[in-house]
Amino acid sequence: MTVYLVGAGPGDPELITLKAIKALNRADVVIYDRLANEEILQHSPNAKLIYVGKKAGEHYKSQEEINKIIIKEAKNESNKIIVRLKGGDPFVFGRGGEEILELIKENISFEIIPGVTSAIGAPTTVGLPITHRGVATSFTVVTGHEDPTKNKKQVKWDYTADTIIVLMGIGKIEENTAEMMKYKSPETPACIIENGTLPNERIIFGKLENIAKKDINTPAILIVGNVINVFKEIKDFKDKD
Amino acid sequence: MTVYLVGAGPGDPELITLKAIKALNRADVVIYDRLANEEILQHSPNAKLIYVGKKAGEHYKSQEEINKIIIKEAKNESNKIIVRLKGGDPFVFGRGGEEILELIKENISFEIIPGVTSAIGAPTTVGLPITHRGVATSFTVVTGHEDPTKNKKQVKWDYTADTIIVLMGIGKIEENTAEMMKYKSPETPACIIENGTLPNERIIFGKLENIAKKDINTPAILIVGNVINVFKEIKDFKDKD
Ligand SMILES: C[S@@+](CC[C@H](N)C(=O)[O-])C[C@H]1O[C@@H](n2cnc3c(N)ncnc32)[C@H](O)[C@@H]1O
Ligand SMILES: C[S@@+](CC[C@H](N)C(=O)[O-])C[C@H]1O[C@@H](n2cnc3c(N)ncnc32)[C@H](O)[C@@H]1O
Repeated sequence: MTVYLVGAGPGDPELITLKAIKALNRADVVIYDRLANEEILQHSPNAKLIYVGKKAGEHYKSQEEINKIIIKEAKNESNKIIVRLKGGDPFVFGRGGEEILELIKENISFEIIPGVTSAIGAPTTVGLPITHRGVATSFTVVTGHEDPTKNKKQVKWDYTADTIIVLMGIGKIEENTAEMMKYKSPETPACIIENGTLPNERIIFGKLENIAKKDINTPAILIVGNVINVFKEIKDFKDKD
Repeated sequence: MTVYLVGAGPGDPELITLKAIKALNRADVVIYDRLANEEILQHSPNAKLIYVGKKAGEHYKSQEEINKIIIKEAKNESNKIIVRLKGGDPFVFGRGGEEILELIKENISFEIIPGVTSAIGAPTTVGLPITHRGVATSFTVVTGHEDPTKNKKQVKWDYTADTIIVLMGIGKIEENTAEMMKYKSPETPACIIENGTLPNERIIFGKLENIAKKDINTPAILIVGNVINVFKEIKDFKDKD
């Protein structure tokens, strides 16, 4: 029995890896939360599908409840392959490490299959080069929704990388962009990619000083930095093309 | 005619996306440089394959020479689909943005297909959670081989993210870790992943103060931060398992 922790990619069902598809094909059980695209589950036509994400009218399953479900399925002797499927990459704000530590406590074997994270897959797909010669030689990926249980460590937005990519960043975008303006010019180009790699993908341009005032739907990522000027040139061409 | 800029993933030929495989299947021409894994070219059995990477005894093709080759193939009317294949993700230190700007100058259509970058795919595969609740809520990806033409901007290694991931970082690892120690404790855990996701993958543990002294082969990434303690626990279990 092996639990596969599998990255599903950023949304477009074709942005899943061959390795992930093979694990899904072989799975007896697939445990998944809200996925950017449920079409991905078609790779597991015979598996038992267990949804552990948010349901309308219900609260989120806690991480503890999810861990219990994974372990219960892993201990069921009729299951050989269990896939724990996560959006993007399982270790990019996916709580994959926590789930692995629980498996270790129970002496359960596991494998991890990376995925294209939305943090990179969404900008790359639209033509936003997160690194670009002469403009950006570093990028930082950060959560905009700091875990309040994290020892109350005050998060400073003093990231010096040339490009900043914020996940889970819409709920607190006002506070977070205000924090960032302590360290970066309010004129720094910013942009939002909503529903990246999906048919309803939308791009919103602004600056650090005004991007929070835009009308934004989730899931979305916020990108800040001068590479957005390069992106504008690329997007202008694509729009005309 | 369309040029597809395609990410091949970090090395394991199964860590390529379905979308990349479909583009390779349809390609008339594939222009590639040194790939982590040439097996990937099997997805283009009928295409003309053009290698533009380093050859033994020869120098690297310059970016200008590569651009000329891409444009020449794109202007050849018998080609419908040209794939420009790159390791990892095309926009993570892949010079993808530069190639796109050249295509725009020539009014050539393009699409970009993201890939699993080695910066994330290599650590995730071995079980190194680059973000982890209570330990790391941010990560920075940076090149260790700063472009000397970049306006001589002095790169400061004052990255405050919890996890630092250095690509192209082995040649200057001595200088770069010395720079990082201006801002981080010399005791900060560090590790190297050599040939990530490939059969000859190797992991080397150390600290910021001594990792540069280890015997390291390329390609490799350097990872610095406390998540390496979590990784050690995961790796110990995997090694026994
Ligand atoms: C809990 S995190 C999980 C991230 C995931 N592990 C990954 O690697 O993409 C969820 C956040 O990812 C981002 N996200 C996920 N899918 C997205 C998409 N298709 N478009 C834009 N942002 C997305 C949003 O910022 C969202 O708040
Ligand atoms: C020019 S950069 C291109 C990176 C690529 N675009 C990506 O997203 O992975 C090359 C660097 O990527 C890293 N790299 C690429 N493949 C690797 C692998 N299989 N294992 C470890 N590092 C790798 C090394 O740091 C190498 O110096």
